[in-house]
Amino acid sequence: MELSQRQQRIIEIVKTNGPITGEHIADQLSLTRATLRPDLAILTMSGILEARPRVGYYYTGQTRHKLFADELKQYIVKDYASHPVVVKSDMSVYDAICTLFLEDVSTLFVINHDGDFVGVCSRKDLLRSSMVGEDIHTMPVSVIMSRMPNINYVFAEDRVIYAANLMIEKENDSLPIVQEKDNGQFEVKGRISKTTITKIFVSLFKE
Amino acid sequence: MELSQRQQRIIEIVKTNGPITGEHIADQLSLTRATLRPDLAILTMSGILEARPRVGYYYTGQTRHKLFADELKQYIVKDYASHPVVVKSDMSVYDAICTLFLEDVSTLFVINHDGDFVGVCSRKDLLRSSMVGEDIHTMPVSVIMSRMPNINYVFAEDRVIYAANLMIEKENDSLPIVQEKDNGQFEVKGRISKTTITKIFVSLFKE
Repeated sequence: MELSQRQQRIIEIVKTNGPITGEHIADQLSLTRATLRPDLAILTMSGILEARPRVGYYYTGQTRHKLFADELKQYIVKDYASHPVVVKSDMSVYDAICTLFLEDVSTLFVINHDGDFVGVCSRKDLLRSSMVGEDIHTMPVSVIMSRMPNINYVFAEDRVIYAANLMIEKENDSLPIVQEKDNGQFEVKGRISKTTITKIFVSLFKE
Repeated sequence: MELSQRQQRIIEIVKTNGPITGEHIADQLSLTRATLRPDLAILTMSGILEARPRVGYYYTGQTRHKLFADELKQYIVKDYASHPVVVKSDMSVYDAICTLFLEDVSTLFVINHDGDFVGVCSRKDLLRSSMVGEDIHTMPVSVIMSRMPNINYVFAEDRVIYAANLMIEKENDSLPIVQEKDNGQFEVKGRISKTTITKIFVSLFKE
């Protein structure tokens, strides 16, 4: 919404002096109340100002963020899912590191032989294990991975904003997108990462 | 901006039938042109619809994204700078890995003994070097780092959206925030990362 200079001055006046009557706003601008009426109508109908009978206009300041919140709620995880990189739990740490490089991801999702999601192996986990002098050619990733249920995940129908908040709160760079199987375990269907969020952020600007 | 149901219906009519005159919109709603005038004023002043003389109203559809773009332009790198983790170029790869763990970052920024910014060392660079069997206790990070000028960076006054776009295009997880020194070299003043962007994304929703 593009506001005229006069509308922006009205907002400033109300921010500083509100609640303030239309007459007093008009006085400050050396204009008549009638001249201001269309501007005040625009500003109240757009929710930037609110008018209370016998009190005057005051600044709400919530509109812009309400609009952002409404927009962001529309982003659903499944629409932004990346391909998950999944390895078996008996893969060696060495092969896991190779996979991480080949696939160029920050996190491997680990499954057992039934395809159940059992753990997560981060670049940091792999770096740590490659340092301590263990034989990474024989050690399986199951030894060094983080295990269910201590793993954060999202479902396809979750909101992207929920995933973003979870990554910040739990300090994860990416999250698996899971689906419940008949046996009550999870299957990994996709991946969402801070890269995904950064791409959406850029698209908000570019679109 | 909260639109009334009637305003939303007008938008739908113009989307489907535009360009369309005010009279035809009024016909479709079984209302008079006079009744609609305030709504059409709101919708054109807010930029959702545009009116062309002798043509009618048409839908611009740009408002929401223009508003986002205007908002995002206000985010400046310096206001979101994190503490940079900086190491000397003669630090051993082993010590660099320890620093990375202790500081819990994805990237180390490397300086020479004059404090000039000379390179970047990522978790991936360190993981790779720890795998190939080199002696990471004696090898300095300068051997494995990415070097200037092949490094992406931003300045404190740059827009966050520029940094976000650079991280996506160059596939960097974080960027150094630099300042030019008297000798023409750069000093590292801060860091901005995909985590920063994800935090801003979450704050857009929560504020």
